[in-house]
Amino acid sequence: MKESSKRQATASEEALWRIFTVPEAPDSTLSIIEQNLSQNLAGFLRKSIVAVEKPLWQIERDFQTHEIPQMPNFVSDYAESLMQKLVAHSVHTAAPSFIGHMTSALPYFVLSLSKMMVGLNQNLVKIETSKAFTPMERQVLGMVHHLVYGENDGFYKKWMHSANHSLGAFCSGGTVANITALWIARNRLLRADGEFKGIAREGLFKAMKHYGYDGLAIVVSERGHYSLGKAADVLGIGRDSLIAVKTDANNKIDALALAEKMAELTAANIRVLAIVGVAGTTETGNVDPLHQLADIAQQYQCHFHVDAAWGGATLLSNKYRHILDGIERADSVTIDAHKQMYVPMGAGMVVFKHPSAAHAIEHHAEYILRKGSKDLGSQTLEGSRPGMAMLVHACLQVIGRDGYEILINRSLEKARYFATLISHNIDFELITEPELCLLTYRYVPAIVQKAMRQASPEQLQRFNELLNGLTKFIQKRQREEGKSFVSRTRLMPVQYNRQETIVFRVVLANPLTTEQILHDVLVEQDQLAQLDKDYYPKLLQLAKEITT
Amino acid sequence: MKESSKRQATASEEALWRIFTVPEAPDSTLSIIEQNLSQNLAGFLRKSIVAVEKPLWQIERDFQTHEIPQMPNFVSDYAESLMQKLVAHSVHTAAPSFIGHMTSALPYFVLSLSKMMVGLNQNLVKIETSKAFTPMERQVLGMVHHLVYGENDGFYKKWMHSANHSLGAFCSGGTVANITALWIARNRLLRADGEFKGIAREGLFKAMKHYGYDGLAIVVSERGHYSLGKAADVLGIGRDSLIAVKTDANNKIDALALAEKMAELTAANIRVLAIVGVAGTTETGNVDPLHQLADIAQQYQCHFHVDAAWGGATLLSNKYRHILDGIERADSVTIDAHKQMYVPMGAGMVVFKHPSAAHAIEHHAEYILRKGSKDLGSQTLEGSRPGMAMLVHACLQVIGRDGYEILINRSLEKARYFATLISHNIDFELITEPELCLLTYRYVPAIVQKAMRQASPEQLQRFNELLNGLTKFIQKRQREEGKSFVSRTRLMPVQYNRQETIVFRVVLANPLTTEQILHDVLVEQDQLAQLDKDYYPKLLQLAKEITT
Repeated sequence: MKESSKRQATASEEALWRIFTVPEAPDSTLSIIEQNLSQNLAGFLRKSIVAVEKPLWQIERDFQTHEIPQMPNFVSDYAESLMQKLVAHSVHTAAPSFIGHMTSALPYFVLSLSKMMVGLNQNLVKIETSKAFTPMERQVLGMVHHLVYGENDGFYKKWMHSANHSLGAFCSGGTVANITALWIARNRLLRADGEFKGIAREGLFKAMKHYGYDGLAIVVSERGHYSLGKAADVLGIGRDSLIAVKTDANNKIDALALAEKMAELTAANIRVLAIVGVAGTTETGNVDPLHQLADIAQQYQCHFHVDAAWGGATLLSNKYRHILDGIERADSVTIDAHKQMYVPMGAGMVVFKHPSAAHAIEHHAEYILRKGSKDLGSQTLEGSRPGMAMLVHACLQVIGRDGYEILINRSLEKARYFATLISHNIDFELITEPELCLLTYRYVPAIVQKAMRQASPEQLQRFNELLNGLTKFIQKRQREEGKSFVSRTRLMPVQYNRQETIVFRVVLANPLTTEQILHDVLVEQDQLAQLDKDYYPKLLQLAKEITT
Repeated sequence: MKESSKRQATASEEALWRIFTVPEAPDSTLSIIEQNLSQNLAGFLRKSIVAVEKPLWQIERDFQTHEIPQMPNFVSDYAESLMQKLVAHSVHTAAPSFIGHMTSALPYFVLSLSKMMVGLNQNLVKIETSKAFTPMERQVLGMVHHLVYGENDGFYKKWMHSANHSLGAFCSGGTVANITALWIARNRLLRADGEFKGIAREGLFKAMKHYGYDGLAIVVSERGHYSLGKAADVLGIGRDSLIAVKTDANNKIDALALAEKMAELTAANIRVLAIVGVAGTTETGNVDPLHQLADIAQQYQCHFHVDAAWGGATLLSNKYRHILDGIERADSVTIDAHKQMYVPMGAGMVVFKHPSAAHAIEHHAEYILRKGSKDLGSQTLEGSRPGMAMLVHACLQVIGRDGYEILINRSLEKARYFATLISHNIDFELITEPELCLLTYRYVPAIVQKAMRQASPEQLQRFNELLNGLTKFIQKRQREEGKSFVSRTRLMPVQYNRQETIVFRVVLANPLTTEQILHDVLVEQDQLAQLDKDYYPKLLQLAKEITT
């Protein structure tokens, strides 16, 4: 009976009309869920997300149906099932002990503002569907441009709202931002010239023949983000032409090696379309020597892009922004607001030194993006897109420079604190020091450390293999237990002769992460290590053999 | 005094801590705004957005500062200023009388769910930051795949959750979806072959030399979306190699002309990497003869992509899905959920006929997207991105096939109703009939219509020029008045010898748009025409000269 009345109720025109016109009742399931979330987000997430991880194949069972249901569902029924099937098995990315990725707790006000953004449902591709959102987004890009380049008042007065210029592009994320920057670099290099109408119109094949190059390349350190490989592929350069230059012991590009590589490529008639500096490598958080990169880019007249998707927020700290010195010489810079700027997922940006840089990728269409209009869509890779810039605008205004100064400084100093903690713990080994708020380390029992100092190269290699297995075991087990989370990656540290070394990777951007939590993470990892029945006993055995 | 206590309060660590840990008080400005929005969205938008449009340069004044403010702001102060400066001058895209673009009213439940999505802040690039969101997104793509291709149970059981396959890619919008599809097409065509390691690794220049083609092309009707030009540029094909094939009187690709063009290109050793069918042109809403396109693509062994960003939702209607017959033969199909599926902005999708299609663009990285993992990021153009798929999932479940059947059918039938209304009004001229829920028309006073039937070709041209001016005037004035909104575009209709013709463009996707509103739009446009002091009198004058 209930079932049939449901069908009647929800598949009717009247029921449909209701979901578009009648708000959720305050005592409905969905409203109550929303209230719980609004009143205590951390508590909501803690209570709603189950602690112990369920295997993925079990979760997948709840998402097996491939047919769109015939019958409509009541919102309350759906909301209940969503809580059990989706929310319960999502990841508590905002937890202060979730220190393995670049997500953080968010300020409360972004929740209400996100709802407003969705309610307004503006489309930033075109001023007709965004109006004030267009100047607002231009202002956000102007502010970030100023943060990077610090041009004078006249500059921003002239360019920030100029119809045919843009100080940057708002993107769904850092990958699209990086692709946009390199797309511009490619098109500016292979521009119209005499009879040749430019790569944008005639394509890469003709461009190469016109300019007579044997190849193109994008040069970056071996720690460059994987999105650059994607960009090289999409843009028709090819992944093999993303040239990785070796890094020094601190994971910064070796400028000498870069200079040699540039000379070598040039001699082979391979044109470097961009040098990419990394300001905050994803794996170790180090920043390339940007002034040196800028010098080399200048020497070879090539585009200088800085991928500061993650580290760019450091510019908000007067105390530490010097770490990124030289970034103001870049032709383009990627910064993600959804990383250390405390904005929800989906807020990437790229800013351009020259307001006319995006002319290289400009496009128009009649019903939309008319020439001379202020439609943002004419100079972006994406088309229709939401008003996410509003959330960046809000964070910049509400937190302000003074607020970010505290947030960024605290992050960096917390990472230094954790590094000290690790160094002073005889059973752990710090692998990379934090330059920003990211560091890597691993668990190596004291007795093993002692043995490793006496070990032969073969034995050292065996130790590292066993340690890699143990690190994987601990990281996986720690994630499954659900109390805390660190990520892991593979490095080739100089101190281990560039042997593959699996490490824990920690990002300390969440302002709610306390020193106590960091202590607890080490205690937990120590305990988890003892549970391993494979690598751990072998490690101790080998250590004993050597030391006795 | 107040000012200084503010500074103290908000720039302190304690104040910062509060924005991350203490929810907005129920009586705070932001909470009250949110309550108003939640309790009556339409009313909130109507009241908050000013009716009469303010000139853009005036709006820009409020977004002039280029420096990030030093001092933090209270959330309430910010919220108040946001309402006045941003919300008041945004666009009421959900208004039932806003029938010019593809935005619509949204169901209420997406508001709460959006807030939940932001609160959860999952990152879909990787299972470690999304867990259940990954299978949920795969299910959404599976459901849309099934909607398009209707494969059997075994197919979805095998592929939907397979780590190394994907039935589609979730994107920020249709542009990224189209680029993804054509990227795949390009890479599959110029794949590894003998010594050649494939375009993804070696780039376009070497690929062309290896395969010995003189050029590449993407072929689409002259009504193809502007994002295809962007794709041709980004992918290194070049905009000039996006070949536009003429359309027939109904704005559908002329299949004969396409066949000729294919033969011509092939004879010139230009390899067509994809034929793109348009299922719902953005300007007139027409659908290409997809079966004929599939036949030709098959004959030339080239990728067949269908851009159904807008029209794809019609597949949800059993009554009208036949309009898209042949779409199931496409290798890839773009569908935007933020258009006629009633999901907020930022939900594009592309589905692939072959689960291994995305292998052509696969990429891996160590700390993320490890081989064999189920991380979605290894087969998408974008990297980090939010859990928007949840909103599509919710709409599919809550509205269901039965609900969409009603919504889609009502849209199409409303468009037919409006077309009849226009045809029966002696002062209006229907330019394109609605095939889906989109139509174009213009205001042509009866006396002018009469005169045009007797006019010489030169006079007809003059009439059209004047009418173009008048249409622009009415459309702009109507937007500024803020009561209703239609968009405009430029067509080259067969009935006017392909002379440039400016028309009103109407999209009837909003379920709340009533027949009365459509009546009112015509009345308003009639009245606005009389206000024009330029084209309108000249039109009448010219008409009089001819008819008397």
